[in-house]
Amino acid sequence: MGSTPRNKLPIVISGGGIGGLACALALAQRSFSVIVCEQAPQFGQVGAGLQVAPNALSVLDALGVGQEVKQHALLIERMLMMDGIQGTQVSDIPCGADFVARYGNPYAVAHRADVHGALLKACRATGRLIELRTDSRVIDYVQTDSRVMVMFESGEHLHAAALLGADGIRSNIRRKMLDDGDPKAVGAVIYRALVPASAMPHALQMPYPTLWTGPGAHLIYYPVRDWKEFNVGATVVKPVAGVEEGEASAEEAMQAFEGWTDVPMSVLRLSPSYQRYVIRHRDPVENWSDGRVTLLGDAAHPMVQYIAQGAAMAMEDAICLAQEADLHDDDFPSAFRSYQSIRIVRSARVQLSSLMLDRIYHASGVERLVRNSIFVDRTPTEYYDRLDWVFAPPSYVRDWRSRK
Amino acid sequence: MGSTPRNKLPIVISGGGIGGLACALALAQRSFSVIVCEQAPQFGQVGAGLQVAPNALSVLDALGVGQEVKQHALLIERMLMMDGIQGTQVSDIPCGADFVARYGNPYAVAHRADVHGALLKACRATGRLIELRTDSRVIDYVQTDSRVMVMFESGEHLHAAALLGADGIRSNIRRKMLDDGDPKAVGAVIYRALVPASAMPHALQMPYPTLWTGPGAHLIYYPVRDWKEFNVGATVVKPVAGVEEGEASAEEAMQAFEGWTDVPMSVLRLSPSYQRYVIRHRDPVENWSDGRVTLLGDAAHPMVQYIAQGAAMAMEDAICLAQEADLHDDDFPSAFRSYQSIRIVRSARVQLSSLMLDRIYHASGVERLVRNSIFVDRTPTEYYDRLDWVFAPPSYVRDWRSRK
Repeated sequence: MGSTPRNKLPIVISGGGIGGLACALALAQRSFSVIVCEQAPQFGQVGAGLQVAPNALSVLDALGVGQEVKQHALLIERMLMMDGIQGTQVSDIPCGADFVARYGNPYAVAHRADVHGALLKACRATGRLIELRTDSRVIDYVQTDSRVMVMFESGEHLHAAALLGADGIRSNIRRKMLDDGDPKAVGAVIYRALVPASAMPHALQMPYPTLWTGPGAHLIYYPVRDWKEFNVGATVVKPVAGVEEGEASAEEAMQAFEGWTDVPMSVLRLSPSYQRYVIRHRDPVENWSDGRVTLLGDAAHPMVQYIAQGAAMAMEDAICLAQEADLHDDDFPSAFRSYQSIRIVRSARVQLSSLMLDRIYHASGVERLVRNSIFVDRTPTEYYDRLDWVFAPPSYVRDWRSRK
Repeated sequence: MGSTPRNKLPIVISGGGIGGLACALALAQRSFSVIVCEQAPQFGQVGAGLQVAPNALSVLDALGVGQEVKQHALLIERMLMMDGIQGTQVSDIPCGADFVARYGNPYAVAHRADVHGALLKACRATGRLIELRTDSRVIDYVQTDSRVMVMFESGEHLHAAALLGADGIRSNIRRKMLDDGDPKAVGAVIYRALVPASAMPHALQMPYPTLWTGPGAHLIYYPVRDWKEFNVGATVVKPVAGVEEGEASAEEAMQAFEGWTDVPMSVLRLSPSYQRYVIRHRDPVENWSDGRVTLLGDAAHPMVQYIAQGAAMAMEDAICLAQEADLHDDDFPSAFRSYQSIRIVRSARVQLSSLMLDRIYHASGVERLVRNSIFVDRTPTEYYDRLDWVFAPPSYVRDWRSRK
């Protein structure tokens, strides 16, 4: 890419997470100059595992960091879903050669920091088209026909050609734009920890995620960081009024798994404590753009994590947004309307599908038996048929490099 | 079949609707003697259309009345779903040769009385194995190890080998057995009418059901009775507290369709009045049997009508129950446990799927766009793949005649 920017005023991206960095990289690859404003004192990610589905890997490939991520990630053999009450297998989706042939990429699990780190490294290597700022929290904006004034918590401001809110589920830019209140708690919490692989029983050290489902809870674990650690996440449906985010005891995390078959409890016992997060989301909306300002990722369409597509959707947003900015040249309001109209149905479908998994994972009584009966009989091809819509990369991702 | 019954005490079926008669016929075909007790002064059905899916036709074939029903029914060419706001087609599922080859039967629409009448005629032709009683309302039962005493509203009682509750969504036998309260209103009503075909605009006289969907309501219409009438049903999501069942004005039925494209309103205008029903259901339960007493059809698993499988499930129950009674000879408690364990997951899946159609049919906002985007792109084969589970007859239906 040339290092002479096509835009005089920079594009400001609020938020230096996976979505914000992917967007900076994509825009720079189309010769836009970008300033990424991260509120934290440094660019980084809290430690936790991240599922990287084939559509997410396709974005990373398009941006040129796919190989880097795949080196550090585990390319999983299968996805396994177990019934936590009976201890029996509910579904087994192979992720080998047929899967890769179908979607153009494997399914990976990684540490969140590995994906973020690869994007950050690529942003830094891009040169002067991308400026990375820390301690820089965007709190408001005002726009005219020709520019947007970005306001920072520090009292400073900046004139920009466009402002992108990649500032997460509690987005300040969304609040200013849509004023649609706080995200809604869905009535569930997730307990997360990283467990040293040495503590994990040998029989459970499998090269794929194992998902245990049952009434009102589910547990997933998989190896990260070259098998040095296992990422453990336990989701528990419960009233969240008054529940604080922060450290929780293993006993608290284990409560919902009492009376299940032994494995889930034995895994949860491996960490003395967990980080507790309240799971929140929003219903899909019909608009997330305002002139020269638009949203991406969780700021635009926050979703529960059950389908593990949050980062993937943010990165697809990034490519699509950069493509439309390119095609509409400097007409950002038109570009953002177009970007939004392309992305809204797909991201809403992921939001809605993710929420439906609550019902599937946490089914009890006869509904659980119905769930098992549906899944047990499905062939790999039948699973693939039902996953095409999400795992197959959209055309703007697939064609990103060839259209450059 | 022989006319010498294998059971000394009769099997009593409470309820002479489609499920009760199908069960009487199936049991008689396995040489059981049956008394069907209908509370009404005569056997009959209120006038309304009935969708007869291929799995329902397969039961009717098994019982020997398939041809009779198909003669009077319309074998539909396709199932058409329209978006009521845009006036555009959402899905079109062809029901021609490929469909018939796949499921062994076409999809029919009929008048409810035609299906009921065919079963009644066959019951009457069966001879002394089936006794049909009217004005005979079962209100209670008491059982011992060897028999069940069936109590009638009249004060009479009867000793039976077994008692089957085919007495509908407000089943007395279920109340006695499970005591699980009234069925729950789902928060929707249906307005039903039969419209003379002469009144229906020529352009809307199609040989298939047309389904109009939109925010909070849907409308379906199709020809019945050799194209003499059109069955019209409008479902409207609304608070039902205080809503009475009974006659309603066309204006009331039309309210929810204001602001839609013109066709739904123009169809609803064709009838001066409608019958209003409050839509109710129950969540699936893990048991609906008690010794020599069991339930079938709506008494066992009442469902909303959106998937149009209520009568089909009742008739499948009937065949399965008769098969298990046959295989377990005179051990009715074992037969009923087995029948229930075979039927519970399938009927629960239909209950749950039917309720999910509420969300699909009545979607609004972005969810409606997601719905349309999912359905518009599906091929007939993709639809068939997703309908196999319900439309393909279970083995006990498929093998009914060959196992006799």
